[in-house]
Amino acid sequence: MLRVYGDIQSGNCYKVKLLLSHLALPHEWVFTDTRKGETRTPEFLAKNPNGRIPLLEYEAGQYLPESNAILYYLAEGTAYLPQDRLARAQVLQWMFFEQYSHEPYIATSRYYLHFLGQGEKYKEEIERRRKPGYAALGVMESRLSGRQYLVAERYTIADVALYAYTHVAHEGGFDLAAYPAVRDWLARVKAQPGHVTMAG
Amino acid sequence: MLRVYGDIQSGNCYKVKLLLSHLALPHEWVFTDTRKGETRTPEFLAKNPNGRIPLLEYEAGQYLPESNAILYYLAEGTAYLPQDRLARAQVLQWMFFEQYSHEPYIATSRYYLHFLGQGEKYKEEIERRRKPGYAALGVMESRLSGRQYLVAERYTIADVALYAYTHVAHEGGFDLAAYPAVRDWLARVKAQPGHVTMAG
Repeated sequence: MLRVYGDIQSGNCYKVKLLLSHLALPHEWVFTDTRKGETRTPEFLAKNPNGRIPLLEYEAGQYLPESNAILYYLAEGTAYLPQDRLARAQVLQWMFFEQYSHEPYIATSRYYLHFLGQGEKYKEEIERRRKPGYAALGVMESRLSGRQYLVAERYTIADVALYAYTHVAHEGGFDLAAYPAVRDWLARVKAQPGHVTMAG
Repeated sequence: MLRVYGDIQSGNCYKVKLLLSHLALPHEWVFTDTRKGETRTPEFLAKNPNGRIPLLEYEAGQYLPESNAILYYLAEGTAYLPQDRLARAQVLQWMFFEQYSHEPYIATSRYYLHFLGQGEKYKEEIERRRKPGYAALGVMESRLSGRQYLVAERYTIADVALYAYTHVAHEGGFDLAAYPAVRDWLARVKAQPGHVTMAG
């Protein structure tokens, strides 16, 4: 059976849980607490030398890290990943955008504010992420205006990946009021069959 | 003909140039200078709302951003991207690692030191990137010890992506002396047919 090491409160882990739920794939979820250093033990580092979650154990003793690579692996051959060469590259385009231009600002702000609950201590760190975080939301707003989904007019793992931290952006202090196309898209994602919330 | 907007001195752009050279694909290279604000003009933002290079114009008026999505698109159907489902996911694993755990530290340090030539001004920014940058090199060293290439025992776009900034890590103040497997791998990549340097 598939096994995932993760914490569903982390968007990077939640996105894997969300796709597993869409696909109704049986799996074991091993709660792994970064705050307790559980990703930095010798045992965990032997599984993933980069010391991060989520981590997929796709076969006993065989591991795949990186949330978006895990999504790609699980979605292969399903409706959540198009077959067309260009559409695949566009799915990846939005997933690389997510990890490079979105997650480091929106997820990290949420980490300081919501996960650690230390907004005052990390005030400058959060402030520095405000502008690029809103820029990422602006890029999404521009893409989603007049579109139902990010790629190929259907729900794909690009939407799964970007939903994870966008739907909790307010927990990082981001206000989505000025992003109506993003808000409509969040509602469409939430209405997908098999949707699961961060509450599990 | 394919057209690329980029600056070969940027590793993210150079990796596209390197793969185009391996594949001997005819293309037009449009030099785009971020320091002159050329990625923030209304004309450029109409092509890529995220305002970044490289940008591939794969058909007249049709654009694909994100360096690693471009590599994936160009490598599809070639020897540089395996067909096997797991190997593909592992190629992506290393490309997401590159953008999330490697580029923000090693490339950005090089940007301040080498590209802008303002090591003193950005001293703290560079200092903050030292530890995670070396951690990324450590993850590569662990993977490449006893292996020729990152994935599937052959040269793939995962190697192309990580070569781009690793081979100029010294320009970001990183010393590769303690990473012999990485240094041997750099030499193997450089010896690939069709290799091109950052000098163009």
